[in-house]
Amino acid sequence: MELRDLLIERSEHLRKHYLPHISIDCVLFGFHQASLKVLLVRVKGQEDGWALPGGYMGKEEEMKVAASRILKERTGAKDIYLQQFRVFDEMGRTGDFFRDYPEGQWHAERFLSVGFYALVDYSQVTPVLDEFSDACEWREVDNLPNMIMDHRAILDKALVKLRRQLNYKPVGYKLLPEEFTMPELQKLYEVILGKPLNRGNFYRKMMAYDILDKQEGTRRGGAHKAPNLYKFNVERYTAALKDGLKEGW
Amino acid sequence: MELRDLLIERSEHLRKHYLPHISIDCVLFGFHQASLKVLLVRVKGQEDGWALPGGYMGKEEEMKVAASRILKERTGAKDIYLQQFRVFDEMGRTGDFFRDYPEGQWHAERFLSVGFYALVDYSQVTPVLDEFSDACEWREVDNLPNMIMDHRAILDKALVKLRRQLNYKPVGYKLLPEEFTMPELQKLYEVILGKPLNRGNFYRKMMAYDILDKQEGTRRGGAHKAPNLYKFNVERYTAALKDGLKEGW
Repeated sequence: MELRDLLIERSEHLRKHYLPHISIDCVLFGFHQASLKVLLVRVKGQEDGWALPGGYMGKEEEMKVAASRILKERTGAKDIYLQQFRVFDEMGRTGDFFRDYPEGQWHAERFLSVGFYALVDYSQVTPVLDEFSDACEWREVDNLPNMIMDHRAILDKALVKLRRQLNYKPVGYKLLPEEFTMPELQKLYEVILGKPLNRGNFYRKMMAYDILDKQEGTRRGGAHKAPNLYKFNVERYTAALKDGLKEGW
Repeated sequence: MELRDLLIERSEHLRKHYLPHISIDCVLFGFHQASLKVLLVRVKGQEDGWALPGGYMGKEEEMKVAASRILKERTGAKDIYLQQFRVFDEMGRTGDFFRDYPEGQWHAERFLSVGFYALVDYSQVTPVLDEFSDACEWREVDNLPNMIMDHRAILDKALVKLRRQLNYKPVGYKLLPEEFTMPELQKLYEVILGKPLNRGNFYRKMMAYDILDKQEGTRRGGAHKAPNLYKFNVERYTAALKDGLKEGW
């Protein structure tokens, strides 16, 4: 069935169970092979129209629960860190997408979309298709495909927010595997901040925060001089984030 | 007429012109006599029930335009700086307030409220009553009255946001009169951050940002040693905020 027919068919069901005029769009970030990625879905029947995973809130469902449900359906992962960051409300934000839809059709009404950014350990995710999409993939933030409606603007704002919240939210803890090396942590900061950082300064600042526990042993495998492994000390990291890490990067 | 009757009478009009399920609450900050203040309204018929100024969005009105309209009606001021900062969506967030209202009554439905914080030069504001309130006053952030529903939580979140955005938004520029002294600027930072700052360090950091222009002359009046006056250099301040001021406070 074509997307349009699917959506029209779904209209009545949605109106019965969900709050009208309010949608949710999720920008799910993952970090893999030294690059920052975001989970996108390709809209059925659109060769080059990618979208953020999104959906609606149940009439008595809390927003964060809805966002969590939406991402769980897409990824299988249940421990995804979520933060709402902005409401997107511009008139005409969906552009021509629903232009020829019938009067009174759910999707064609005005929707304010609440943007959530989400962080997950990349290895925990198995992208899942649904009946409205024919692809669901990690894409590199530095090399994004064409996106529908205002989804690219939502993604860009999420990235700005992520950058600003580096000192206030457990970004590293949520994006990295449990154990990581200092170069891996530095690379994560570099891709989020979009600039190279001095290795010595980075190490010094990170150690001064006293939020990392050095692990016994080193990363196995290739490197002739294997780097040390670290874990976040969750208790001290959480306490430090409360007032914000003090130094700029 | 009692508040309840007024609201019930207004229900049909609201449903016709505004988006359902979405409201706006504004936390308007002002700075006066070395203290941070917030504009509150006392709900008609409630001896001790204060609220944030709020309202609804027109069906084709943008959210920020609506927030601006709501505050203009309350203050007469038209150049108010506004930033949305969070959606408040918890089930039951209005508590018992509308418990005995009739089925289908607009106000008694579930509303997600978009919180805006707002900054204004205190001297520009003339608080205005409306038919739902019997007081509209500046109150000190450090000494707040009882507030209805979840409005105190919204206010507290706005304050956290303001604190975090000190390095990213033109907070000082919007809260202070055009010309100000360094002790006044420092006091503003201290009340927002909720802690005393070292005078020498504050001066040094502020001057290092190169965002202030020293004015000819000093503050007239009382002090025997009159302090210098400064203005923000809007161009350099705006440029500096783009990446964020780098140092913590």
